[in-house]
Amino acid sequence: MKATKALGERALIEQIRRRSAGFAPSGLRLGIGDDCALLSLRPGEELAVTTDLSIAGRHFLLDAHPPQAVGHRTLARGLSDLAAMGARPLAAFLSLGLPRELTLPRGRGRSWVDGFLDGFMHLAESHGVPLAGGDLAESPLAVADIILTGAVPRGRALLRSRARPGDALYVTGQLGGAAAGLERLKSLVRSRATANRAIPARLRERLAPHLFPQPRIPQGLWLLHRRIATACIDLSDGLSTDLSHLCAESRVCAEVDAAALPLFPASSLQQALHGGEDYELLFTASSGTHLPRVIAGVAVTRIGRILRRRSGRPPVTLLRNGRAEELVPRGWQHFAG
Amino acid sequence: MKATKALGERALIEQIRRRSAGFAPSGLRLGIGDDCALLSLRPGEELAVTTDLSIAGRHFLLDAHPPQAVGHRTLARGLSDLAAMGARPLAAFLSLGLPRELTLPRGRGRSWVDGFLDGFMHLAESHGVPLAGGDLAESPLAVADIILTGAVPRGRALLRSRARPGDALYVTGQLGGAAAGLERLKSLVRSRATANRAIPARLRERLAPHLFPQPRIPQGLWLLHRRIATACIDLSDGLSTDLSHLCAESRVCAEVDAAALPLFPASSLQQALHGGEDYELLFTASSGTHLPRVIAGVAVTRIGRILRRRSGRPPVTLLRNGRAEELVPRGWQHFAG
Repeated sequence: MKATKALGERALIEQIRRRSAGFAPSGLRLGIGDDCALLSLRPGEELAVTTDLSIAGRHFLLDAHPPQAVGHRTLARGLSDLAAMGARPLAAFLSLGLPRELTLPRGRGRSWVDGFLDGFMHLAESHGVPLAGGDLAESPLAVADIILTGAVPRGRALLRSRARPGDALYVTGQLGGAAAGLERLKSLVRSRATANRAIPARLRERLAPHLFPQPRIPQGLWLLHRRIATACIDLSDGLSTDLSHLCAESRVCAEVDAAALPLFPASSLQQALHGGEDYELLFTASSGTHLPRVIAGVAVTRIGRILRRRSGRPPVTLLRNGRAEELVPRGWQHFAG
Repeated sequence: MKATKALGERALIEQIRRRSAGFAPSGLRLGIGDDCALLSLRPGEELAVTTDLSIAGRHFLLDAHPPQAVGHRTLARGLSDLAAMGARPLAAFLSLGLPRELTLPRGRGRSWVDGFLDGFMHLAESHGVPLAGGDLAESPLAVADIILTGAVPRGRALLRSRARPGDALYVTGQLGGAAAGLERLKSLVRSRATANRAIPARLRERLAPHLFPQPRIPQGLWLLHRRIATACIDLSDGLSTDLSHLCAESRVCAEVDAAALPLFPASSLQQALHGGEDYELLFTASSGTHLPRVIAGVAVTRIGRILRRRSGRPPVTLLRNGRAEELVPRGWQHFAG
């Protein structure tokens, strides 16, 4: 963690360094304070790396999202990519560009970035992931780039490219909850009911899939270690888009049964098909494999199957009310509305 | 490399994927196209990771810096951190947030981001570093977060914290050239002489340390493998600031001889002391160690020594004209003027 001087950024780094010093898992050999962090792998492991950029007004709304949710969601995006590979998280890195006012104390003496770090560190600690470094700079626009490193047994990472015709298609958890929650949050903002960013208590559960999505790290590890999944991807852009990625990388087609989709309560089929940011795992397994209904506390649902590529067959087909139609990728446009 | 849909970002990712596909060093097992990239280390190695955030208006100026220079400088910042640890580069990751207009063709059918990638990939290829992933998003402000991964023999990384009293203090290359070049570039912009961002040919050499700094990867590797350096840091914030970091982490003081500083032609002592972004290596070695005058083609100069911490002794002392004065950290404020 370095800083481009000025404005208490040095103090902010020291604060982050203190908050991160609490736990240092065995893989982290050197954290914040030098030119690089140092990590070690266990014998037979290789490294997984992912980065995700979050930008104010596009991935989060300063006037709608509680800062704790922005911190949580920033980290969750990266952890979900590790989950999709079946990786064991090693360490997180965070590059933050912030307007000065977000670093200054406001209500109860705490700044926006204090709330952001609360949400970030709470999720990090719940997964045993140290914040090992990053960068800080003053910026007219709030931006957060999250980098996650993880470890996988060599040659055994869950890839997008290994689905085979005949495989069954599964999803963890429920779909559409994040999109439905975002819609609800937007209408709250329009009605000015979220003054001071307070979320009414009665809405917290309904908004949770959007504000505090749970990356499926334990489920990814389970799928890898039991050698269950043939291919895997996380649902960040929406089922229609992410499934089309999986099919393209695996050079296969897929068929989804609309009636089988596990909808989050009060979510629509459209939100489940195209709403992004559910951060559930979409994976394939040989059709003969027996899967439990629940993996590490989260439901698993069979939603379709993988088909051979064939001339005239769309990449993804949706079966609905006895009819087959093409499921065109129409992933979530962040705040495009 | 993932993308937050829309606006040809998918096409841009495909372009980057093609440009990156040319070379895949042995350490890169899986590049752009899945949820994470996969890297492997050799036996006995550990991983070095660094991130650096560059923001338009703060770290680079869209109306002054050629896009090739912005791409080069973005990558150089990260490579320089690896150099300071003595690390062998493994792979780079790039998170880019760009206004739409920077992705659209302008003069000669090429966009700003094409030029950025030219500069980035040219430096990457010259160091054999693949671009293994990252993220892309539309953003009202241009931002680039660079992540570098490297490998070091376990337990042998060059740290900031291992300088010992009695060690000699060295620097690679010349100092002040980047700050002098930036001053010159700013005056060019003020005089509107850089219309279309063209840098007059007669100025290119003088501006090179600022526009195209050379990360000292071979020198860092040399220092590590010969077990020469006791401590090392790269000069990103300026000698006065970075030396104070090294002293703080090593719990020592230092003394710098102004007359010994290797100034870049036409640079001032102040620029050499406080101007940042020279990206030279500042390192210490036992006073009995014999160092060549040139390491891997770059001059090395002894500029001072490490002293024990003592009450009343400033962290860093500057010897100038027979007098000793405290050298207060006054690192470069990017574009603060």
